[in-house]
Amino acid sequence: MRALGVGLIGTGYMGKCHALAWNAVAPVFGDVRRPKLAMLCEVDEALAAQRAGEFGFAESTADWKALIAHPEVDVVSITTPNAFHAQMAIAALKAGKHVWCEKPMATSLADAEAMLVAAKAAGTVAALGYNYIQNPAIRLAQRLIADGTIGPVNHVRVEMDEDFMADAGALFSWKSEAASGHGALDDFGVHAFSLIKVLIGEVEAVMADMARPYAERPLAAGGTRAVETHDIATLLLRLSSGASGLVALNRSAWGRKGRIALQVFGAKGTIAYDQERMNEIELYTADGDSDVQGFRRILTAPAHAPYDRFIPAPGHGLGFNELKIIECRELLRAIAGEPAHLLDFEAGLRIERTVDAAARSFREGRWTTI
Amino acid sequence: MRALGVGLIGTGYMGKCHALAWNAVAPVFGDVRRPKLAMLCEVDEALAAQRAGEFGFAESTADWKALIAHPEVDVVSITTPNAFHAQMAIAALKAGKHVWCEKPMATSLADAEAMLVAAKAAGTVAALGYNYIQNPAIRLAQRLIADGTIGPVNHVRVEMDEDFMADAGALFSWKSEAASGHGALDDFGVHAFSLIKVLIGEVEAVMADMARPYAERPLAAGGTRAVETHDIATLLLRLSSGASGLVALNRSAWGRKGRIALQVFGAKGTIAYDQERMNEIELYTADGDSDVQGFRRILTAPAHAPYDRFIPAPGHGLGFNELKIIECRELLRAIAGEPAHLLDFEAGLRIERTVDAAARSFREGRWTTI
Amino acid sequence: MRALGVGLIGTGYMGKCHALAWNAVAPVFGDVRRPKLAMLCEVDEALAAQRAGEFGFAESTADWKALIAHPEVDVVSITTPNAFHAQMAIAALKAGKHVWCEKPMATSLADAEAMLVAAKAAGTVAALGYNYIQNPAIRLAQRLIADGTIGPVNHVRVEMDEDFMADAGALFSWKSEAASGHGALDDFGVHAFSLIKVLIGEVEAVMADMARPYAERPLAAGGTRAVETHDIATLLLRLSSGASGLVALNRSAWGRKGRIALQVFGAKGTIAYDQERMNEIELYTADGDSDVQGFRRILTAPAHAPYDRFIPAPGHGLGFNELKIIECRELLRAIAGEPAHLLDFEAGLRIERTVDAAARSFREGRWTTI
Amino acid sequence: MRALGVGLIGTGYMGKCHALAWNAVAPVFGDVRRPKLAMLCEVDEALAAQRAGEFGFAESTADWKALIAHPEVDVVSITTPNAFHAQMAIAALKAGKHVWCEKPMATSLADAEAMLVAAKAAGTVAALGYNYIQNPAIRLAQRLIADGTIGPVNHVRVEMDEDFMADAGALFSWKSEAASGHGALDDFGVHAFSLIKVLIGEVEAVMADMARPYAERPLAAGGTRAVETHDIATLLLRLSSGASGLVALNRSAWGRKGRIALQVFGAKGTIAYDQERMNEIELYTADGDSDVQGFRRILTAPAHAPYDRFIPAPGHGLGFNELKIIECRELLRAIAGEPAHLLDFEAGLRIERTVDAAARSFREGRWTTI
Repeated sequence: MRALGVGLIGTGYMGKCHALAWNAVAPVFGDVRRPKLAMLCEVDEALAAQRAGEFGFAESTADWKALIAHPEVDVVSITTPNAFHAQMAIAALKAGKHVWCEKPMATSLADAEAMLVAAKAAGTVAALGYNYIQNPAIRLAQRLIADGTIGPVNHVRVEMDEDFMADAGALFSWKSEAASGHGALDDFGVHAFSLIKVLIGEVEAVMADMARPYAERPLAAGGTRAVETHDIATLLLRLSSGASGLVALNRSAWGRKGRIALQVFGAKGTIAYDQERMNEIELYTADGDSDVQGFRRILTAPAHAPYDRFIPAPGHGLGFNELKIIECRELLRAIAGEPAHLLDFEAGLRIERTVDAAARSFREGRWTTI
Repeated sequence: MRALGVGLIGTGYMGKCHALAWNAVAPVFGDVRRPKLAMLCEVDEALAAQRAGEFGFAESTADWKALIAHPEVDVVSITTPNAFHAQMAIAALKAGKHVWCEKPMATSLADAEAMLVAAKAAGTVAALGYNYIQNPAIRLAQRLIADGTIGPVNHVRVEMDEDFMADAGALFSWKSEAASGHGALDDFGVHAFSLIKVLIGEVEAVMADMARPYAERPLAAGGTRAVETHDIATLLLRLSSGASGLVALNRSAWGRKGRIALQVFGAKGTIAYDQERMNEIELYTADGDSDVQGFRRILTAPAHAPYDRFIPAPGHGLGFNELKIIECRELLRAIAGEPAHLLDFEAGLRIERTVDAAARSFREGRWTTI
Repeated sequence: MRALGVGLIGTGYMGKCHALAWNAVAPVFGDVRRPKLAMLCEVDEALAAQRAGEFGFAESTADWKALIAHPEVDVVSITTPNAFHAQMAIAALKAGKHVWCEKPMATSLADAEAMLVAAKAAGTVAALGYNYIQNPAIRLAQRLIADGTIGPVNHVRVEMDEDFMADAGALFSWKSEAASGHGALDDFGVHAFSLIKVLIGEVEAVMADMARPYAERPLAAGGTRAVETHDIATLLLRLSSGASGLVALNRSAWGRKGRIALQVFGAKGTIAYDQERMNEIELYTADGDSDVQGFRRILTAPAHAPYDRFIPAPGHGLGFNELKIIECRELLRAIAGEPAHLLDFEAGLRIERTVDAAARSFREGRWTTI
Repeated sequence: MRALGVGLIGTGYMGKCHALAWNAVAPVFGDVRRPKLAMLCEVDEALAAQRAGEFGFAESTADWKALIAHPEVDVVSITTPNAFHAQMAIAALKAGKHVWCEKPMATSLADAEAMLVAAKAAGTVAALGYNYIQNPAIRLAQRLIADGTIGPVNHVRVEMDEDFMADAGALFSWKSEAASGHGALDDFGVHAFSLIKVLIGEVEAVMADMARPYAERPLAAGGTRAVETHDIATLLLRLSSGASGLVALNRSAWGRKGRIALQVFGAKGTIAYDQERMNEIELYTADGDSDVQGFRRILTAPAHAPYDRFIPAPGHGLGFNELKIIECRELLRAIAGEPAHLLDFEAGLRIERTVDAAARSFREGRWTTI
């Protein structure tokens, strides 16, 4: 059987991240056949050729449809701007290819729904790039919750904060246009929901507020323009399990660079985590002598699969890019028909619906069910 | 002029804390006359006498009315269970005494309103024991916000979590009875609101959710009883300043012992704080070279008044009880007619109204203005 | 029986700290009779009178010998500059008084030896103010070591760092004169040795290095003067138990304000501590499932006596000054003939001898036994 | 010109790490030609073939001499056990190949010296795998020291601790045999010295102590065997710059997994770092208002080259393996004749000599110069 053929569309932030993963998945895991990097697509043809050389792809193109049609391409990595996800994913699925699409699924609920329809029709693998769920630390949290270590979860809090929109003096950009979405709610919210999903389960109802730290932003040509998105969103959640939840999102949070802070409270203990320290998890359990109880800082280690595939020594640390390598391994598992730890288009659509319900709850000032 | 005469009602957790403050305020501050500890009241007469000896009070009684009537008592510390605050405070005010009452003001909004009426009529000092606002670290935060170091505040988050209700197997207690209040909302919420008040300003509207981690609790006699309060509360806030806010309260949060975590986001920086590390504050400012920006951990020091009155060396640390000594000094300031850093009954009533509005917002599922 | 009569010499940093402790010991502990604050001594008579009023002492004086001779003074708190400790302590002991003397014992080994001779002759209590050992967190560490939780200790590291000598531009002061001692070695080393003593045991041999971050310092009148002390000291230790140790001392350590960082390594676990976060201790034990092992942050709580005497709720935090209240309670225990957790003059002398041996090891460039 | 041809000897911990780096260096950096992975060597021929497939090497062999002789191999990665470094490196150098050898250089000073002779004779690049110095956080520290941000360095402390030898019940292994070296001194010390070298400069004199936490260890066959190495080492240092230093090494430190804790004290500030949190650096500077000074936690970001080549967003985090990719890029720079941030065999020999001097200082109980 020939090696799995890979087509990659996009060579930016996430494009490079996919490329690194496709190069590393076989050396890291050792239990998969080294895929064939068949074709790379980038809008600029010269850049496509250059990146193909760097990334190790055999061919390059500026025509994404050609990539999808390429007979050696079995799986398509889609890392283009969100607005292109739907058409590319649907085309690839229609061509019978597997699809690995960056999150969020699409820029409209209708597009996301169409993507799911296409995925169901194709019967191939259609997975989303929710990489944070791949962290061995998060998987440890997932296991500790699943095995009852902290008891039934009754409350969860997720904060996601960065500061790329924090500078009031920064020029008005597309991130402040309504066309880009709601703002922090979709930009960050989808990550929060992906983590809640794998750790605890489904969100049933939501009540959101949104805010604009800066009403307007300067234009390059002088003057200002009113900001149309909301860089801050806060959400109250009720989960199907009965747990209560809270999500706080802020992309104008000075000093926060990649914070995704989780707190999961259970009847027997608590788990805390911060993506800025992604190789640690904090666990408190109400076991044993009460005078020596405390939050324990667990460093990820070979005991926390698949950390062991990267490094045989504990506490040495994985990086953000390496989560995508793990995700890639899961994708290969799914393609091989094995159970995989991935969010597919069905799970992704549920996340998009949660975002949509949150936006409605804000407009209408009342709880909204998903 | 004779020394200020002190009457103290209650010798429990907060009663002892007041007693320590009354003993220490002159030695620590040195700029106030040592007050006369005139009379101590405790329901059990023998215990009252014993504690009077320990605490250094000249006389003791089991009759709180006698204490209020005592001619040498100029100021009354009220540290009894919340249900007694109103009648004692009103009686003391009517007798022309100053009142230093532990928070929360009362167990009903009507009582709190009556207390304010009495305070206005008396014209004496009527102050509440919101001790967390006295921390030099919090005062530093207050100054950094006031002087524009972090720019206009656009978002605030406050979490208050402890675990004294976290044990699902603990017997049903009065804390789970509706008569005790809403649960975490009033038990913890008043602290959160006091901090928001001094740091940022007034809450204008609130939308709350409340949850019960355990639907029922065991009874000593066997069987169980349905829990009537909510150990978890989550609140979305809109402040008069236009800032958005969020409060999360959990008294069943395993592992959290005295957590009051603040995050205040401004247009030029961020402040973070956790009461469990009450001698530190974290400050991020967007000044200077971006490649060396980071949250700085500032340890409280003599530069942060009135830390200097306690210890001449930085980073040596104050304790929880010492906040009450600072509060006591502020009370003396108020009694002397000087500007004081205290929450009076008017500010306290606003906090009670915020709690009440939150409870209504939960029942009605919609935003409620204060 | 009349109350214990207290005489306090000195009203500076430690004088105030003792005064606060004498005021608070009965209210906090409740199981001791409130001492009588008989007489306060300060070199300036007017200041002595003023402080006596603030601190609650009945009388004041500028003559320390009068204080020692005062018939109502049973115990003498000595908080004067180190050079005066010996004569005052010896005089008080000769007068049959109990002595509570701030560390270090004296400025020469001969003086310290004379103090011990006097203490033995007097038969009264002669205790030193090594307050850090009184922290409930340190006592917890002590218990965890004693009960074998971390197994036999094989290695210990103590760092003590502050930055009061860090400013190279600060004027030459007495701290840089040879008459003040060795520098960091005695200024800080005594604290390190007191902690090693109570946690692990005796130091048997030492090998030290010392360094001057700044060779000279400016004089107010212009020009500079050569620094005679060493603001940095580093020590290798061998303990009687066979454990190896290391002490690092730096009083010119920018950013460190009250750091005393301990790491105690045992055959079954590790304990870590930092005085700048004095209400926490970190414990790692090699028990249970290895994939959930980690350093746990234990917040001090009522379970860690005598924290419970201060606050009935966990994680609320004691302050530096409150350690002296605990020490005062131990002193009262010793005076009552009960076992007490204190370092007496015998233990203190051993610490002074360790400092002396370290200084010799530095001069001679070889290991020195104590 | 053809692509650089790579030969890799060894496929264990570090072999895999090199393989990942060779696969990723072109995709990550984009400014280098993708190297040709020519030949892989592993003692077991079948394993060699399997790993070659996974790692993307064109050919495989069990004969390392064949690999060195391979005409397409321009550079040889040596990742075998330390005892083989010398003969392989010397052979490769004699064949005119570039050498990238894992640290430490060799198991004897004589071997290391011979390696340097061979490197000088060959004139090719001979670099060592001191990967920790490649961390953007460490490079930031290096720059902050070099540009005077913390002023002249006067004191440095380095701790390196792991717990792989902490279990007293673990069977006697080769790590406890004298043939493996001194113990922690060489196992960990070389890392400490590499960091001191790039951050501050040369070590001039050393005084070491070494200790055995466990005198003997159990044998599989029953009974015990005396431990010949020292799992603990502590060192006092004097640097050529006049700074004082301290190194503490413990490979039986329960709970420490990959700790390399640095503290660098200067006349104007302090830098602190812990490898367990490798994406952070702490900086204190004595600039600006003293009441807002504190250690700031700087998260690595695109501003800290070459972080930007991996991730365009700050605070997202690199992993341990990615340091080797950076090292690989530096190696390519050196091969291209450009200035490179690498420790070559000359620097490596100095490190070996420091280890040797430390061992002598321990045996002789006195300071030893390097």
